Amino acid sequence: MPSTPQGTPCTAIVRFGRNDPDEIRLALDMGAGGVLIPLVRSADDVERAVRACRYPPRGSRSYGPSRAHHYGFDRDYYPQSQPSIACLVIIETAEAVENIDAILAVDGLDSFVMGPADLSIALGVPLDTQHPKVAQATETVLAAARRAGKPAGLVYNPAGLVYNPAEPALMQQCVAQGARVLLASGDEWMLHDACQSMLQSSAGLRN
Amino acid sequence: MPSTPQGTPCTAIVRFGRNDPDEIRLALDMGAGGVLIPLVRSADDVERAVRACRYPPRGSRSYGPSRAHHYGFDRDYYPQSQPSIACLVIIETAEAVENIDAILAVDGLDSFVMGPADLSIALGVPLDTQHPKVAQATETVLAAARRAGKPAGLVYNPAGLVYNPAEPALMQQCVAQGARVLLASGDEWMLHDACQSMLQSSAGLRN
Amino acid sequence: MPSTPQGTPCTAIVRFGRNDPDEIRLALDMGAGGVLIPLVRSADDVERAVRACRYPPRGSRSYGPSRAHHYGFDRDYYPQSQPSIACLVIIETAEAVENIDAILAVDGLDSFVMGPADLSIALGVPLDTQHPKVAQATETVLAAARRAGKPAGLVYNPAGLVYNPAEPALMQQCVAQGARVLLASGDEWMLHDACQSMLQSSAGLRN
Amino acid sequence: MPSTPQGTPCTAIVRFGRNDPDEIRLALDMGAGGVLIPLVRSADDVERAVRACRYPPRGSRSYGPSRAHHYGFDRDYYPQSQPSIACLVIIETAEAVENIDAILAVDGLDSFVMGPADLSIALGVPLDTQHPKVAQATETVLAAARRAGKPAGLVYNPAGLVYNPAEPALMQQCVAQGARVLLASGDEWMLHDACQSMLQSSAGLRN
Amino acid sequence: MPSTPQGTPCTAIVRFGRNDPDEIRLALDMGAGGVLIPLVRSADDVERAVRACRYPPRGSRSYGPSRAHHYGFDRDYYPQSQPSIACLVIIETAEAVENIDAILAVDGLDSFVMGPADLSIALGVPLDTQHPKVAQATETVLAAARRAGKPAGLVYNPAGLVYNPAEPALMQQCVAQGARVLLASGDEWMLHDACQSMLQSSAGLRN
Amino acid sequence: MPSTPQGTPCTAIVRFGRNDPDEIRLALDMGAGGVLIPLVRSADDVERAVRACRYPPRGSRSYGPSRAHHYGFDRDYYPQSQPSIACLVIIETAEAVENIDAILAVDGLDSFVMGPADLSIALGVPLDTQHPKVAQATETVLAAARRAGKPAGLVYNPAGLVYNPAEPALMQQCVAQGARVLLASGDEWMLHDACQSMLQSSAGLRN
Repeated sequence: MPSTPQGTPCTAIVRFGRNDPDEIRLALDMGAGGVLIPLVRSADDVERAVRACRYPPRGSRSYGPSRAHHYGFDRDYYPQSQPSIACLVIIETAEAVENIDAILAVDGLDSFVMGPADLSIALGVPLDTQHPKVAQATETVLAAARRAGKPAGLVYNPAGLVYNPAEPALMQQCVAQGARVLLASGDEWMLHDACQSMLQSSAGLRN
Repeated sequence: MPSTPQGTPCTAIVRFGRNDPDEIRLALDMGAGGVLIPLVRSADDVERAVRACRYPPRGSRSYGPSRAHHYGFDRDYYPQSQPSIACLVIIETAEAVENIDAILAVDGLDSFVMGPADLSIALGVPLDTQHPKVAQATETVLAAARRAGKPAGLVYNPAGLVYNPAEPALMQQCVAQGARVLLASGDEWMLHDACQSMLQSSAGLRN
Repeated sequence: MPSTPQGTPCTAIVRFGRNDPDEIRLALDMGAGGVLIPLVRSADDVERAVRACRYPPRGSRSYGPSRAHHYGFDRDYYPQSQPSIACLVIIETAEAVENIDAILAVDGLDSFVMGPADLSIALGVPLDTQHPKVAQATETVLAAARRAGKPAGLVYNPAGLVYNPAEPALMQQCVAQGARVLLASGDEWMLHDACQSMLQSSAGLRN
Repeated sequence: MPSTPQGTPCTAIVRFGRNDPDEIRLALDMGAGGVLIPLVRSADDVERAVRACRYPPRGSRSYGPSRAHHYGFDRDYYPQSQPSIACLVIIETAEAVENIDAILAVDGLDSFVMGPADLSIALGVPLDTQHPKVAQATETVLAAARRAGKPAGLVYNPAGLVYNPAEPALMQQCVAQGARVLLASGDEWMLHDACQSMLQSSAGLRN
Repeated sequence: MPSTPQGTPCTAIVRFGRNDPDEIRLALDMGAGGVLIPLVRSADDVERAVRACRYPPRGSRSYGPSRAHHYGFDRDYYPQSQPSIACLVIIETAEAVENIDAILAVDGLDSFVMGPADLSIALGVPLDTQHPKVAQATETVLAAARRAGKPAGLVYNPAGLVYNPAEPALMQQCVAQGARVLLASGDEWMLHDACQSMLQSSAGLRN
Repeated sequence: MPSTPQGTPCTAIVRFGRNDPDEIRLALDMGAGGVLIPLVRSADDVERAVRACRYPPRGSRSYGPSRAHHYGFDRDYYPQSQPSIACLVIIETAEAVENIDAILAVDGLDSFVMGPADLSIALGVPLDTQHPKVAQATETVLAAARRAGKPAGLVYNPAGLVYNPAEPALMQQCVAQGARVLLASGDEWMLHDACQSMLQSSAGLRN
């Protein structure tokens, strides 16, 4: 990864609201080390995201890497060196599950994460992310990832609306399922969890 | 309507600059009770807007209702309950007038408002919103709404550039024309009106 | 006035929330042509505001006129030329009424406006801006202004919470009272007026 | 409390970075139901905060309640009715502990919370919030609150840098100590806790 | 050009990140005097940009010119008068070079500038903006512009990453090549140049 | 210095508009490595700035180092370790020149830079930064710095309004004068220089 924030071995992967090459370019020019694209439905969708991450001839990214390029001072950020941007997508539509082999065959797609909430809605069992239909679709995708030799990703907290505090057993289960990428949480989920926990702890205080 | 600001029987209907499902999703997740989409031309355009307001299978809205969902605390905001989002469009292109029956037949379109300024431009009589061509197109649309059994909407202030202060007679006339939705004004129009009125009142003061 | 927005014979006078030389400097450096300072109580308060508007030796303004100075291209914006910044205050405390002669004697104070709402509260008749106590204090201040030869200012809309649409008669009355500066309205008042008017006009529509 | 967000029996209490009447006014005009002022040292400091929350004659708040006043539509938000704003301070300086009786005697101060981190620094045992010096100062303040008949407040999470998840026992202990106001957590603390928990849960996954 | 900032014979030409009619409309409604659209590939792309700049019937711009229209006070900004918006594109893709005659034939395209950095990448010689392939493509486009009778534009600083300070000789060379529009620099380039110059000047100071 | 941006041996020193402990705290909590305070007049002013940079007992900084503290993950950012914040002031008032020995004697003041523009105004020779009065005051301050054993600072570009491009000779002269801290430029100055240079280079192009 090209940049590491504050001396840590981390990079920022930006989660987008749509598959838009122009928004992707802005994030990469700001120094993002990777992208996470929601709601892909086909190999064409993934190809579009991959192309947005690469300069020609492989891709369509236009040149203007302001911050990523250290405003002109980083002479190593040349397009010919093609900085290694991680390109990930979210598998959360019924079409993506159907097209999973073609999707994983796209050259330049590095990995993916499952999107259990939207997937449950797409499969007709809204927010029942533990439903056999969701589990079966997840297994279909994980099996395809094994065949394609690409690392699979799971959202750590599979229970959808119930954002439990971090539990080692659940994480271990994700890894056992084959996950090598974990979408561990989000700021909104963390705040919800903390507030919920606080409310429960204080429930008996008023007496 | 799902949410009411500050204890009043009101909801926020967001007026967009374009027909973009991702922008619509953001507004709905923030708690908007409805959307108003400009410049539609066909039933396909309207179908796109309606789908952006609904979860699958009827629509394409993806799941993530942060504020609308009270950040996880509102257990009633489930996709299966399909919160009733009001979906309105603006009829302001020549194509929309031609396709009005197909547009009004789209399942999930709740209502519309006429857009007299753009419509006058589209009809070749720019900003002459009182021109017979505009009146005739408006009547065509209102008649179609009556046939379709859908409530019609009018911009209250039909004079285009002349943003008059609220006049009961004009409002009454809109209702008499069949309007059940009134786009009453906008912040920019209100400020213009007030400044204009102030300037006129003070015109004689310098002597 | 040093700058005129958009080719009009106008300048921006910035209304501050407090009498803070640093905030005043920022506004002047951005090109404001004048300042309006609330809640002054004494000649010292006014002196502080005047000094914030002037470079040494008269004042305390520090140098850095970015936008006012056209970012270095306007060679005429030198401190020695002392651009003529209009310095106005709001008379809205009981102490200011008592100290009005000393306040108006401050060299560099150009004018003032009465602040009827806060003044009514200060005089124990909250928001009754028509109360004789408010009228008497206002007359005291206007008389002092006549003696000092400085132009007096009135808020055009004396009724406090009742923000009526612009009425020539009221304006005329302000001028007859001696006002040469009119604080005509504000964005919030204008929007309130317009919404109120809209609500009244539509009150009979539901039947 | 004058306003309740989203139909819940809650109000927003704004925590300020300094004791500034102008900033307090802005928050109250936006509809805050109370204020929490840091770093007070004396009864004079508290008097300043209380006055910023009240209109004359008790206080110095100036009039202009835009959002709190529903932009002019709420006729009940009159200064004469003196909306009940909760005024709280943080006891976190050595001087405040010394002056606690005078501070609590200020008419209009509703309550306070202890600030253990700054207090530990002030007492020479930086961030050792469990140190007997901190415990003794806290007990001094709580005893004064009992004498004054004012509700005391504690930060729920007394361990300073160690932001543990919500634990009922700790809360119970705060209440047993006399706390009737609990500063339960903050967004930054919650996010730190959640990330820390996530990191601990995932520590064993790499093997 | 319809508007001139601060009394100078200048207008703002907005450089967009994509060819989006809705973003173009927002800039024009804010008073931009022209647009500069990147990454066009075909006459269709240019037609889309031109249409976004014009009202019907020539274009697709919708009505709502808030600031450009002086919020209703400028009665001369009528759609029928079709304010003359400058429409420029950037020629920086291989496809645009191939389609240059068709592109320049689009009615309403006023001019263009070459985009040497992206063009060098597109031609397989990334950032070697002096490479014969880039020079040849540039000459192809300039020749087409002469045939079409449209003013050509060059980026003044052709060396790509090396943002040299302004040199009259280079500018003269651009004009000699036929440039009538010069994209002289950008804020980021200027800051880079100044910092680079500062670093070089101070390199010997530490001894 | 406690933090280094992007792996470089640099830290951010924040230039404030006023000497405000609360603003200083916010910048330090965000990770600033130093502060630069304008318009000091006396040792008391400098003492106030120094105290804002230190925790008790030496200073008055309150605890809450969010980003500086890596949101709780950096256990080494304890108040007892007193992170070494660089505290600098600008000498640009006549009073500061008079009080320079007392100012430099303040324990915790690390260095200073001269402010030639404001100083020239204060000395009655506005913006004539080369005037003997300014040179003499500068030499007075530099001599005091030598006596006090504290590194002196100069603004590199002493010509005031004429922001020349970086010239090694001028920098060398600053160092020869005793400067060990150079305030090299600012974004506004750099942009002005680059635009000025561009305008001069293009002056002959229109013929």
